[in-house]
Amino acid sequence: LPSEFELIRRYFQRPTPSAVLGIGDDAALLRPAAGMELAVSTDMLVEGRHFRAGADPEALGHKALAVNLSDLAAMGATPRWATLALALPAANEHWMAAFARGLLALAQRFGTELVGGDTTRGPLCISITVVGELPAGQGLLRSGARPGDDVWVSGELGGAAIGLAEPGLAAAAARLDRPEPRVALGEKLRGVASAAIDVSDGFAQDLGHILEASGVGAIVRYESLPKFPHADTKLQRRCVLSGGDDYELAFTAPQAKRDAVAAIGAGLKLPLARVGSIGKGNPDLAVLGANGKRLKVERGFDHFAA
Amino acid sequence: LPSEFELIRRYFQRPTPSAVLGIGDDAALLRPAAGMELAVSTDMLVEGRHFRAGADPEALGHKALAVNLSDLAAMGATPRWATLALALPAANEHWMAAFARGLLALAQRFGTELVGGDTTRGPLCISITVVGELPAGQGLLRSGARPGDDVWVSGELGGAAIGLAEPGLAAAAARLDRPEPRVALGEKLRGVASAAIDVSDGFAQDLGHILEASGVGAIVRYESLPKFPHADTKLQRRCVLSGGDDYELAFTAPQAKRDAVAAIGAGLKLPLARVGSIGKGNPDLAVLGANGKRLKVERGFDHFAA
Repeated sequence: LPSEFELIRRYFQRPTPSAVLGIGDDAALLRPAAGMELAVSTDMLVEGRHFRAGADPEALGHKALAVNLSDLAAMGATPRWATLALALPAANEHWMAAFARGLLALAQRFGTELVGGDTTRGPLCISITVVGELPAGQGLLRSGARPGDDVWVSGELGGAAIGLAEPGLAAAAARLDRPEPRVALGEKLRGVASAAIDVSDGFAQDLGHILEASGVGAIVRYESLPKFPHADTKLQRRCVLSGGDDYELAFTAPQAKRDAVAAIGAGLKLPLARVGSIGKGNPDLAVLGANGKRLKVERGFDHFAA
Repeated sequence: LPSEFELIRRYFQRPTPSAVLGIGDDAALLRPAAGMELAVSTDMLVEGRHFRAGADPEALGHKALAVNLSDLAAMGATPRWATLALALPAANEHWMAAFARGLLALAQRFGTELVGGDTTRGPLCISITVVGELPAGQGLLRSGARPGDDVWVSGELGGAAIGLAEPGLAAAAARLDRPEPRVALGEKLRGVASAAIDVSDGFAQDLGHILEASGVGAIVRYESLPKFPHADTKLQRRCVLSGGDDYELAFTAPQAKRDAVAAIGAGLKLPLARVGSIGKGNPDLAVLGANGKRLKVERGFDHFAA
């Protein structure tokens, strides 16, 4: 049987020209560009909680990196490097090869080099840390939303949660299994958006984090929200407002930036919907229905909730 | 019950003056000093594999960070920042508070700020990524050992493995549960050592990594190795040569640096033993007994071995 070291070499070790030193020593060595800040984010995915037992390893490799790249996108950072910590029940070479394929394909598409990691035996658990760069002071913080700003959302909401509810719907399942991190959007929103977050725990909860960090409220028109299509409008509403895993960006921008935002969406061929506005006062999110009445919004995802 | 976000705030969120932005946004923002390289390392610890079920959470918090700081030490880097990904079977506040106490106490001692992370429910699994700094080009690579160099080891070997074999021995158990990362030694070895590694998988295997990366062989005198004391010399030998988890540094340095190495050890009040020398040829490690004959050395730890 090949050793841990041999498996890492075979499946995960690729040239890392943008690192001083990649996989294979005690630590990777990186040389950030002058004048840049680093954005660092970590996520952990656990079998049975974030993905089904027996999930396709190639899709899993994609998703494990995608959720991290999405965090960088929400900060407006350009992905550069990643490390991977992986606990596996057994040294299953087929699984590892497919997982690495999914991960490295996405990494290559976004110019991200896998520079280090750790593998061990244990219940299937994946933790990735990504490092991105951005010009100093230009990070898209959650705390920058101001009264009068517009609220925007990219793409469509609810698809991933619908995919979880109805695995037979291929388009929805693809949203769940192969999310597309909005990296280019995040980069272009530097200097344009006032605050941003990625929709990982549900739109209402994630926008709520912006409101809390900024000390502002928001009114959102449910009709304006971009929705993954579904005939069951009750299920759809739940998934659009409180479903997780979409990895779209929710962001705010001054009204003066409406044309700039529209131009970014057109340039990226990515729909960007203006869905509401920021107001003064408590960090409260009011989602209004077509009749102007406030909709009841479920609480989003808490990783320790029952 | 407090939410995931509240628990993180309460137990893990501390001021991070050396970061532009710490815990609480999509990513941490870091501003490396000009002219410095970053060293990045990741480890994953799984219950039942790297520590016993029911292990003291405070000691675990210490160890989870210590093993990562040890990787930075082996690279000669100065620790700066860390992220934590944590899967826990339940939101046990007592456990989390103790774990955070152990981790943050060590972090503070080594000037390391916890700037981000992720918590989720799952089988107990801890993954930490550390980021350190060092002057560009001064990293202590595994690949720098040259024929004629001396082989050195810090502290004592075998204590952690003896602690695993005989948990009743308090001094050995402390080596296992509360390893001390040799950070100051690593920093001082910049410009002095030619190669370095930390002893995590066993001295023979870890020195073997240096030999392989450098394309050299080594002869080590077993008598010269600094040993955790134990009456059972057979057990002791196994633990000294092949036991893991000591987190001492094994390093090589030119003979011309003997005085410099001795001065570093004296300055740190840390015993540094000269245990052998690097030779030409295959990456082969010969450990010689008192009679000059070669000892049989067990293979070290492979995280996927049965």
